[in-house]
Amino acid sequence: MKRSERLVVMTHYVLDRPRELVSLPFLAEKYDAAKSSISEDLAIMNKMFRKEGIGHLETVSGAAGGVKYIPAYSKDYSHQFVHELCERLEDPARLLPGGYLFMSDILGEPDTVRAIGRLFASAFADKEIDAVMTVATKGIPLAYAVAAYLNVPVVIVRRDPKVTEGSTVSINYVSGSTRKIQTMVLTKRSLAEGSKVCIIDDFMKAGGTINGMRNLLTEFNAEVAGIGVLAEAEDEEEDRVVDEYISLVQIMNVDDREAKIEVHAGNLLNRIE
Amino acid sequence: MKRSERLVVMTHYVLDRPRELVSLPFLAEKYDAAKSSISEDLAIMNKMFRKEGIGHLETVSGAAGGVKYIPAYSKDYSHQFVHELCERLEDPARLLPGGYLFMSDILGEPDTVRAIGRLFASAFADKEIDAVMTVATKGIPLAYAVAAYLNVPVVIVRRDPKVTEGSTVSINYVSGSTRKIQTMVLTKRSLAEGSKVCIIDDFMKAGGTINGMRNLLTEFNAEVAGIGVLAEAEDEEEDRVVDEYISLVQIMNVDDREAKIEVHAGNLLNRIE
Repeated sequence: MKRSERLVVMTHYVLDRPRELVSLPFLAEKYDAAKSSISEDLAIMNKMFRKEGIGHLETVSGAAGGVKYIPAYSKDYSHQFVHELCERLEDPARLLPGGYLFMSDILGEPDTVRAIGRLFASAFADKEIDAVMTVATKGIPLAYAVAAYLNVPVVIVRRDPKVTEGSTVSINYVSGSTRKIQTMVLTKRSLAEGSKVCIIDDFMKAGGTINGMRNLLTEFNAEVAGIGVLAEAEDEEEDRVVDEYISLVQIMNVDDREAKIEVHAGNLLNRIE
Repeated sequence: MKRSERLVVMTHYVLDRPRELVSLPFLAEKYDAAKSSISEDLAIMNKMFRKEGIGHLETVSGAAGGVKYIPAYSKDYSHQFVHELCERLEDPARLLPGGYLFMSDILGEPDTVRAIGRLFASAFADKEIDAVMTVATKGIPLAYAVAAYLNVPVVIVRRDPKVTEGSTVSINYVSGSTRKIQTMVLTKRSLAEGSKVCIIDDFMKAGGTINGMRNLLTEFNAEVAGIGVLAEAEDEEEDRVVDEYISLVQIMNVDDREAKIEVHAGNLLNRIE
């Protein structure tokens, strides 16, 4: 196989396996090339990934060494993406009763969802994460997108137990904005004890739902490794119950009557270098 | 930029944009190379994609011509993947009351879900599809995976209307296996009239839920372009209400008492060439 051909297949191979260790001897055998040639190929790939702003190859040395593809976005692209998203969200036609914002169209676009996943994965790149957790329904695509770039499984919490799931652990929690008592359920076999979990959701107002997931994790002796929300909204009623989190956008000054809304970049951009 | 470098970034660029027309003049300008060089690069990429069994580049000729990356899996890999999945599912520990099968762990693995999405996208490659539809909750990750490879949006049907969604269209349907009357809701602005829709779900017994989605599509003057389910199960109670569909696996001879189960390849494999 020529170098040009090998670069095509190797690029696909590592892009398809984010954060997975791909060993040098394995690649040398798979593509029938000298380890020194493979090393040179990987150096070219690393240089070009960085140049395109899509992440880099991390080198792991030693006998079992190789590379890991760490997906990321460049600072420039991250800013551009978030600002375009803010503009799209600022459309007053998105305003729904109660200060909610219609976002299902955006959350229905696989490429946008993938980009959001990559941004969160960039922001959480230095954390040790075993699983991504979300609550049904709207956070699910985001959770999968983040999990794909972190290369960890997704765990879905439900608001109703389902007969097709087996035994479950459930907790009650108080919804931050409505003060109603609600239930959250997680299938017992879906999360291992002691897991380090990244919580992802589409929307956070007072943070009651996310706090509920945090309490549920305690039941599994698992810990929160990070919290990411697509959109955070102001909540005047009370203080937020969740403090350490990353948000992509912030929804501010929602005015139902005047049909006005402001959407600003969230704190995620501060984390991207 | 050298050819070797260009191949790395171009491979990423087209893989990231399945089924999207990428024009030759655009690539020539983006990578500052002659159109003839870009053509040669694309020929190398096409050859290697086919060799790796990950699809091919479709050439679109004319002034606005270029290439489209059509994701697929080779016949060999498809068979291997489906048979490995059958083996994993045949574990009697997965049996749940009522003849259901625990699959949440598998559906929680982003790489497995992505592979399933690519298989369905291969099987539906020749159909004209505008959107992928599923019903909350477990079909959602599969629907996104299929939609990502088809490069179309996802539309999520809910079983309960949500205040944060705006006006909705709802229908009643009869669940095939339990004969209960249930409700299904879709937000009005989430699907354009006349859309050609691919329905995806994780599980089908009698097919009542999928039939419900089909009826909902009628309300939107939309049409069914294809139906894909991860697992179909035998239903002895009555005839299946859905006939034309693609399944990845078939669950057979479930025996709760003996804790036995058989899982075979579904009809999808017949479609992969």
